[in-house]
Amino acid sequence: MTLRVGIIGAGPSGMAQLRAFESARQNGAEIPHIMCFEKQDDWGGQWNSSWRTGLDAHGEPIHSSMYRHLWSNGPKECLEFSDYSFDEHFGRAISSFPPREVLFEYIKGRVEKSDVRKYVQFQTAARWVSYNELTQEFTLTVEDLPTGSTSEHIFDKLVVSTGHFSFPAAPEFTGINSFPGEVLHAHDFRGAERFAGKNILLIGSSYSAEDIGMQSHKMGAASVTFSYRSAPMGFDWPENTVERPLVTHFDANTAHFSDGSSGDFDAVVLCTGYQHKYPFLPSDLALKSKNVLYPANLYKGVVWQQNTNLFYLGAQDQYYTFNMFDAQAWFARDVMTGAVELPSLEAREADIERWLGLQAALLDHNAEADFQSEYLRELIAATDYPPFDLAAVSQLFKDWMGHKATDILGYRDMSHRSVVTGTLAAKHHTRWLNAMDDSLQRYLQG
Amino acid sequence: MTLRVGIIGAGPSGMAQLRAFESARQNGAEIPHIMCFEKQDDWGGQWNSSWRTGLDAHGEPIHSSMYRHLWSNGPKECLEFSDYSFDEHFGRAISSFPPREVLFEYIKGRVEKSDVRKYVQFQTAARWVSYNELTQEFTLTVEDLPTGSTSEHIFDKLVVSTGHFSFPAAPEFTGINSFPGEVLHAHDFRGAERFAGKNILLIGSSYSAEDIGMQSHKMGAASVTFSYRSAPMGFDWPENTVERPLVTHFDANTAHFSDGSSGDFDAVVLCTGYQHKYPFLPSDLALKSKNVLYPANLYKGVVWQQNTNLFYLGAQDQYYTFNMFDAQAWFARDVMTGAVELPSLEAREADIERWLGLQAALLDHNAEADFQSEYLRELIAATDYPPFDLAAVSQLFKDWMGHKATDILGYRDMSHRSVVTGTLAAKHHTRWLNAMDDSLQRYLQG
Ligand SMILES: Cc1cc2nc3c(=O)[nH]c(=O)nc-3n(C[C@H](O)[C@H](O)[C@H](O)COP(=O)(O)OP(=O)(O)OC[C@H]3O[C@@H](n4cnc5c(N)ncnc54)[C@H](O)[C@@H]3O)c2cc1C
Ligand SMILES: Cc1cc2nc3c(=O)[nH]c(=O)nc-3n(C[C@H](O)[C@H](O)[C@H](O)COP(=O)(O)OP(=O)(O)OC[C@H]3O[C@@H](n4cnc5c(N)ncnc54)[C@H](O)[C@@H]3O)c2cc1C
Ligand SMILES: NC(=O)c1ccc[n+]([C@@H]2O[C@H](COP(=O)([O-])OP(=O)(O)OC[C@H]3O[C@@H](n4cnc5c(N)ncnc54)[C@H](OP(=O)(O)O)[C@@H]3O)[C@@H](O)[C@H]2O)c1
Ligand SMILES: NC(=O)c1ccc[n+]([C@@H]2O[C@H](COP(=O)([O-])OP(=O)(O)OC[C@H]3O[C@@H](n4cnc5c(N)ncnc54)[C@H](OP(=O)(O)O)[C@@H]3O)[C@@H](O)[C@H]2O)c1
Repeated sequence: MTLRVGIIGAGPSGMAQLRAFESARQNGAEIPHIMCFEKQDDWGGQWNSSWRTGLDAHGEPIHSSMYRHLWSNGPKECLEFSDYSFDEHFGRAISSFPPREVLFEYIKGRVEKSDVRKYVQFQTAARWVSYNELTQEFTLTVEDLPTGSTSEHIFDKLVVSTGHFSFPAAPEFTGINSFPGEVLHAHDFRGAERFAGKNILLIGSSYSAEDIGMQSHKMGAASVTFSYRSAPMGFDWPENTVERPLVTHFDANTAHFSDGSSGDFDAVVLCTGYQHKYPFLPSDLALKSKNVLYPANLYKGVVWQQNTNLFYLGAQDQYYTFNMFDAQAWFARDVMTGAVELPSLEAREADIERWLGLQAALLDHNAEADFQSEYLRELIAATDYPPFDLAAVSQLFKDWMGHKATDILGYRDMSHRSVVTGTLAAKHHTRWLNAMDDSLQRYLQG
Repeated sequence: MTLRVGIIGAGPSGMAQLRAFESARQNGAEIPHIMCFEKQDDWGGQWNSSWRTGLDAHGEPIHSSMYRHLWSNGPKECLEFSDYSFDEHFGRAISSFPPREVLFEYIKGRVEKSDVRKYVQFQTAARWVSYNELTQEFTLTVEDLPTGSTSEHIFDKLVVSTGHFSFPAAPEFTGINSFPGEVLHAHDFRGAERFAGKNILLIGSSYSAEDIGMQSHKMGAASVTFSYRSAPMGFDWPENTVERPLVTHFDANTAHFSDGSSGDFDAVVLCTGYQHKYPFLPSDLALKSKNVLYPANLYKGVVWQQNTNLFYLGAQDQYYTFNMFDAQAWFARDVMTGAVELPSLEAREADIERWLGLQAALLDHNAEADFQSEYLRELIAATDYPPFDLAAVSQLFKDWMGHKATDILGYRDMSHRSVVTGTLAAKHHTRWLNAMDDSLQRYLQG
């Protein structure tokens, strides 16, 4: 019987899985019976963003955490598909840090060239999965959101590609329930225009805090205050931007910090990260992890240890994104079809342990970039995914981090060189700080 | 074998179901094996409100739509439990329109007097239900949210009491995605303090629009604009408050209305109601309905037509609340135990049709209040729930609506008389418009 493969989520990872099978088909292979379920009305995952917050038009949790004026925060050269370059898509060199719509266009471009959209049922949410040990089959119940009608589908292999930056992790703070201003998690941030002239407090010290803070600065916030739990970001911030240790409590609109200082704020944005959450999975199949480069319990970061018919894509914290999802999807495909043979449970466990050991020893961001490059190297070597110069990409990450350290408002104006085509990125017509129209149309104008 | 009853949700309706069995037990009856699952960490449903918006600490949809400074919008005399009066709980007369914390205290008071909390598993979300036609059993899968661990439970009878004012119905408007100010649904509104000095647009013309609009006025909004789809509310609004027909589109911060007028706004609150949504139910068991006084497919508004082992509580639009949930819970209990015998499918269908016919003919709010009173009369007559003077309560509703028509900012300062105890409500120490501390403590101060 033809293998039946179910894919949950058509973000970049789910799209990579579709593309992996399509690539095999083009190379003459017989491909499985594939069904992909996507709760939104288009593919693209995080890149398909919405003005809505909280719950969507069907009452489902809003998936995308993206917002107006979001630009890539890493160089596009670090995420380029090795089988579909930016040059191929845009027909000319573009800048290194494109805004959301431009990257959305790029990832759609690749899959729209092949006939894979037919596999996807949109506006269809995965509701519940059960696994029958005897028949080794998954039963996936999905809901067609416009009609509310539920149905069951049987699969031999199941791919979970639902992302892990959608369910906020939001701590409690004493007094926050009577803070009179706006309190929101980064997940519900949609633009900083309304923060003009305001004093903004951001709790957290990672990418969301950094970017929402600088978006607020760009849009004219009176002041930006970051509050960190572990360590300050330490960038060379613009004036009226400060870092403080963690909030201990709120008293009306005043936040008190653990160093005894305090400040009055108009709005609080909780940039405190996200939870891995798979509400459609029984607990024995659900990944539990912090946002780390190597979650435990996944062989090669992809295959569920206790049930090798189950696959996770994109479950890692991400230096690499699109090209990593590709490498994982090609690997998952080859495990499913048997082209890659899985070692024993013990051998897999030992491999996971080795990676976890390496991860535990990582000292800084540079080492992390190298670590994820090594991980990709191993994955790519195992399949026919077109290899690319991972050492060069690792260097791009380091250059980028250097630029951020030098100029946090200007790093997105720098140009990097593609390792796929050798093209040096174009200089963009407008500096990030001055760009007030983030549309694809404006971006592509000369 | 002892009947196994599962209850999903421990809001006022779920609490009523627990209380109904407890009342039977106190009267000497053998009661079923009961398990109640509540995703929040306390009971009280909507009344157990949180500063959080969108998703909660476990990534579950936030349940409560309530907010700071929310007071009862109907007289407490209309919702009083006939077996537990306000006088009994507070030991003295209190005012007719208590703030949220006071009503929360009242509903907890009744169940805390009896030993029913032991039936409730808190922080436990219903994930998926299946029904076995052969064994006539429900399998309910729940997730313990702190640990993520899922487990299955078998029940003969299942009660759905998860409310229907938690999943926003939020329409799309052209241009809203680039509205630069705050856009939120009433569900995520937590207080109007931040609207001081702002121009606020509220879309919708029902309770949420009215109350959030007047909260904004109370907190010093520069102007309040309501936009209606069907009809204006037509109250005698304070100055700087206007009603406009529906928004056609937004252009930056300008809203255009269908009468050709327009206005510039700082924030938009979508007060466009809620969806019945039961993401844990297969579609053949899930109620689909608008927010109406008599949803179809439920015999006596409670028993699922196609599977009489399934019960819904509180699924109606609500003039009556707590006492209606009681009447329903007592009825559901007696159907489960066999004390009330169900007529044939056809007879039940005819009964539903009769009620739907009456509903279709309702002309105004007064007629609606009478309709729901009649519904309660029938329910209460069927069980040993202590009867109360429904005609008198129906008159209270009409008096209340009269007061609203006369003075939309002052109706909450009026006093109504209890039909349970005959007590005339106390005059409150502070007018609603001037009250700036909505705590239980402040309320109870002399
Ligand atoms: C604010 C933000 C900014 C980012 N910026 C960048 C950036 O600049 N550059 C970069 O490379 N990466 C960025 N990322 C990282 C981003 O995670 C990846 O680019 C990429 O989107 C991950 O792809 P994915 O398919 O694994 O997950 P997602 O993109 O999250 O897609 C998952 C898909 O699964 C669907 N889904 C979820 N649950 C269900 C269900 N129950 N049933 C059916 N479908 C479901 C969702 O609707 C979604 O379409 C950013 C992330 C965030 C949160
Ligand atoms: C903004 C607002 C103001 C209101 N003001 C008033 C008022 O002034 N006076 C009045 O009488 N009524 C008011 N109401 C009406 C209110 O609906 C009722 O008072 C009452 O709370 C309804 O009780 P319920 O138990 O049916 O539903 P809810 O109160 O909604 O309780 C449902 C419970 O089910 C739980 N639940 C949901 N899903 C799951 C799941 N999957 N697993 C486990 N548990 C789950 C929830 O956490 C919640 O505790 C108001 C409603 C709203 C929205
Ligand atoms: N393109 C863009 O511009 C852009 C913008 C935003 C986000 N993103 C992407 O979105 C993804 C998520 O980034 P993220 O920053 O949201 O999450 P993240 O990288 O996981 O960081 C979470 C942050 O929250 C802090 N935190 C967690 N719990 C806390 C608590 N209880 N109290 C205080 N602080 C707490 C963490 O501090 P500790 O260090 O103490 O753990 C950390 O600083 C990343 O892939 C990122 O690249 C991209
Ligand atoms: N205690 C309090 O003070 C308080 C405060 C708020 C709410 N509540 C309670 O909360 C519950 C819900 O009240 P609610 O007002 O949120 O909901 P609701 O009573 O169901 O009203 C929904 C409103 O949204 C409008 N609407 C729906 N879809 C629309 C669309 N596409 N475009 C424009 N308008 C649209 C409806 O207009 P149409 O008339 O055109 O259909 C209606 O006015 C009630 O039980 C209420 O008592 C209590």
